[in-house]
Amino acid sequence: MEKIYSYNRLYDFTAGVFTRIGCSASDAALAAKVLLSADVRGVDSHGVARLSGYVRLWEAGRINATPNIQIVHETPSTAVVDGDAGLGLVVAPFAMQVAIDKAKIAGTGWVAVRNSNHYGIAGYHAMMALENDMIGMAMTNASALVAPTFSVEKMLGTNPIAVAIPAREQPPFVADFATTTAANGKLEILQRKNADAPLGWVQDKTGHASHNANELKQGGSLLPLGSDREHGSHKGYALGSIVDIFSAVLSGASYGPWAPPFPAYVPMPENMPGQGLGHFFGAMRVDAFRPADEFKEHMDNWISRFRKAKPSEGYEKVLIPGDPEREMEAARMKDGIPVVAAVTEDLQQLAQKFAIAL
Amino acid sequence: MEKIYSYNRLYDFTAGVFTRIGCSASDAALAAKVLLSADVRGVDSHGVARLSGYVRLWEAGRINATPNIQIVHETPSTAVVDGDAGLGLVVAPFAMQVAIDKAKIAGTGWVAVRNSNHYGIAGYHAMMALENDMIGMAMTNASALVAPTFSVEKMLGTNPIAVAIPAREQPPFVADFATTTAANGKLEILQRKNADAPLGWVQDKTGHASHNANELKQGGSLLPLGSDREHGSHKGYALGSIVDIFSAVLSGASYGPWAPPFPAYVPMPENMPGQGLGHFFGAMRVDAFRPADEFKEHMDNWISRFRKAKPSEGYEKVLIPGDPEREMEAARMKDGIPVVAAVTEDLQQLAQKFAIAL
Repeated sequence: MEKIYSYNRLYDFTAGVFTRIGCSASDAALAAKVLLSADVRGVDSHGVARLSGYVRLWEAGRINATPNIQIVHETPSTAVVDGDAGLGLVVAPFAMQVAIDKAKIAGTGWVAVRNSNHYGIAGYHAMMALENDMIGMAMTNASALVAPTFSVEKMLGTNPIAVAIPAREQPPFVADFATTTAANGKLEILQRKNADAPLGWVQDKTGHASHNANELKQGGSLLPLGSDREHGSHKGYALGSIVDIFSAVLSGASYGPWAPPFPAYVPMPENMPGQGLGHFFGAMRVDAFRPADEFKEHMDNWISRFRKAKPSEGYEKVLIPGDPEREMEAARMKDGIPVVAAVTEDLQQLAQKFAIAL
Repeated sequence: MEKIYSYNRLYDFTAGVFTRIGCSASDAALAAKVLLSADVRGVDSHGVARLSGYVRLWEAGRINATPNIQIVHETPSTAVVDGDAGLGLVVAPFAMQVAIDKAKIAGTGWVAVRNSNHYGIAGYHAMMALENDMIGMAMTNASALVAPTFSVEKMLGTNPIAVAIPAREQPPFVADFATTTAANGKLEILQRKNADAPLGWVQDKTGHASHNANELKQGGSLLPLGSDREHGSHKGYALGSIVDIFSAVLSGASYGPWAPPFPAYVPMPENMPGQGLGHFFGAMRVDAFRPADEFKEHMDNWISRFRKAKPSEGYEKVLIPGDPEREMEAARMKDGIPVVAAVTEDLQQLAQKFAIAL
């Protein structure tokens, strides 16, 4: 049975759990805020549904609750941050802030992060740039679930890209998407319903297209954006690779099939070529290119022109990236956040383990 | 009838044509080199096939053969370049060089360009970074041929993204792709053969999927990477939008449906919100993140591991972005460049018009 929780209730609970695993009060508050930004924006797979997963990683000794996050290398417009195996939910905002601070002086800032963990939704970090009149970017590599074009071997994560661009009267442009045809969370929804997946989302272990939403448990893999070669999967494969290289090869994290797995029961890959997961962040001051007001006025024009694009038969309107998540946020902050039964059970077990009221 | 020309013969001819329209000797040589890099790498739609199109744009007064290309705004890591309506083939290498020079000092360099024209293949410009041990990026907006998800109106160009990443023993990683399911050049090949297009490449004027390779002439449009909503076309639409905004809104060029058309007979859009086409370039010094040797060693490891990924049934091997174009380049520099009959005729007309031997 699905339950509805208010944002504040989930927030207090989540921050409480992070405190109990040893995070400082401010880190726990930040981690809860970042994690819940996923639930609030409707990306249910990346929010409280993962809280018990983070706890298990901490129990397995893979997450350091009191990390010494630091800049280990820098130039005027770049830095490398070592996350000291901290929660990505805390490491990522630190690194994005470094990018923003660099941009204030150098025009742009670019930060590669090693030795981190999963950081929630990429969009949260990219959006940190907006209040500074900057364009924000965030990427991360992740456990390998995706096969390159012509391959059956899982070599890449769902490796998301987020780009946030400020406007004036219009809400900002916020794109945040996995570089696969479908995110893994969408498959999980089909698995719970025992439903088939559309062709083009997954392939079986021999590389043939499959409708089976459980294919990944049987040696299959997710497909890069584009689905197959004829529909441009080599482009999705290239995008996922770029995210992997920027996030992990530039920073000194573990890349490709060696990216550390999120489930704590999966053993770490052998011969890892770097430390932990990697992220990549960018911040570009809008007025490093043209006056901010002028830019934002043109963004308003861009957005309102695209909103007015003639819709296809049977559709009402054209959406701007970020529209659905913003509508979801407004609704969930007002009406509460629905949590499916499996996740509620998970949270109740955490409540018991840590003696925190849910 | 297809004809085979040697690189040098096409180069001399192309540089000759650019000289006759008034380019300086060095600009004509550069423009020819950039344009032909498309033919050499197998992107036939973007090479000499477009030479007569550039000439027609010059005849229509839309290309300035002796532009005063200049930096109009800059910070330590950014610049805006005004192309003065010059050939994109000349403006783009100028701007990419500015990005590289910025990166030498600030770690990275990011250059937005306005008031330009088509610049050939994005990959050429991104690859300029490689010899400097930098990662190179190039994007451009283009005439609107692509409908956003849920729309029938052509709002975006095929807006390519190129990313070039150096390695040591391995050849570099070079991704260069349109943010559509299929590039327009692939449709042109089908049109010449009177063949059907796979579903997912184009839609008709009502927004329904179509096999008709001539659909664009009948009010239809190209589809963003992903083809339809179920297969992630909103991601391709977001990517194409990001390219448009970085290239044209940041720089002050004309964006979205107002991007200037390549065919000189198509009238310029009314109420253009900026000047000419826009491009966006980036250069990141590898050693602004970690020592270049170390990075390149890991890139070799990344590339060789991906080459060894287990292939799907019926496929021989997994490719690294840039492999097909590099193989094509080796073959065409040796055996010559095949030019289809329609393009040969075009070139012969140019030869006659300008009294240059082909």
